[in-house]
Amino acid sequence: MRISELSQDAGVPVATIKYYLRERLLPEGVLTSPTQAQYDTVHVDRLRLIRALLGPGGLSVAAVRRVLGAIDEPPEAMHELLGAAHEAASETQDAPVDRAAAIALCERLGWRVSRDCEGIGRLAESLAGLEAARFGVPEGMIEHYAATMRSVAEAEIAGTPEGSVEEVVRYVVLGTVLVEPLLLALRRLAQQDAAVRTYDP
Amino acid sequence: MRISELSQDAGVPVATIKYYLRERLLPEGVLTSPTQAQYDTVHVDRLRLIRALLGPGGLSVAAVRRVLGAIDEPPEAMHELLGAAHEAASETQDAPVDRAAAIALCERLGWRVSRDCEGIGRLAESLAGLEAARFGVPEGMIEHYAATMRSVAEAEIAGTPEGSVEEVVRYVVLGTVLVEPLLLALRRLAQQDAAVRTYDP
Repeated sequence: MRISELSQDAGVPVATIKYYLRERLLPEGVLTSPTQAQYDTVHVDRLRLIRALLGPGGLSVAAVRRVLGAIDEPPEAMHELLGAAHEAASETQDAPVDRAAAIALCERLGWRVSRDCEGIGRLAESLAGLEAARFGVPEGMIEHYAATMRSVAEAEIAGTPEGSVEEVVRYVVLGTVLVEPLLLALRRLAQQDAAVRTYDP
Repeated sequence: MRISELSQDAGVPVATIKYYLRERLLPEGVLTSPTQAQYDTVHVDRLRLIRALLGPGGLSVAAVRRVLGAIDEPPEAMHELLGAAHEAASETQDAPVDRAAAIALCERLGWRVSRDCEGIGRLAESLAGLEAARFGVPEGMIEHYAATMRSVAEAEIAGTPEGSVEEVVRYVVLGTVLVEPLLLALRRLAQQDAAVRTYDP
């Protein structure tokens, strides 16, 4: 199909498609003349994926490029793959923070995680943020958060599709990026429901 | 204290403090001469809060201004307060999406939530994102996500401090903004732990 048809099929303006081509998010089509290229369903699928990552996924163009890279050239071991997915899906972090509290928390929880992975960096940053804002998390609450996220993660890893590496990477990367806003939206709605039931039964 | 002492106490450069003053994030000090003002511990606390919201909270200056507004002038009813906190903590959303699927999900879950709240908009957007990316969430997984977030939210609402309205707003707003990155970091680490145990025991 031509770029105009690709635009219609995927519901993305031609100018935007050209931008994604320039930014190397979308692979080039097959040239049929010096000024015309042919595209196929691979491009339609990729365009939909880019839109989902940029929109609800909330990623930057650079992060989308990394995510697509992880899908196109996946590492082999599952835990490396998970690390690559997490890193690909992460925006660059600010100034490095002290990781000691985050490492200690994971040890207390008995979690087998790499000390220098990006998740520890994120945990360290969020703990430092709570501390800086003098936000006292109620007693036992961090453990409750950890237990619920553990239950989510176990179900997610157990649900990993048995298929090609590409499918697994897609599941892991998109599961990280696209499910995060879903979880946060559900938490806010559940808070609303719990507040209504508690204060306004 | 003078602005230079405030800078030292809060660990924020003078130029940054002046920027926050111009942006009306930080209240003016008390003028002691046409070019000099006095600041106190209220300013130190507020500066720490601003830094936490901009840094780990990941909010924009505009969103921080809204959050501080919700803390300074809180609504009275608890569920309104929660809504104000959620809205204050939200960046402007993109194009409106169809809310039907999100509303239907909340009805299926039996959650008492307002159909036009920002949480429904977020849920709708994240569901649309999963759909657009052709990401098949495994059977029953959305219900599992909802149940875990419900358990988190119940504990959070039950943990609301009994204090002044300001304290409650602070708990709700900061609990929304600062706990979100904590939950997501814990999920990523728990995935890593679950993957190591499953694939590399």
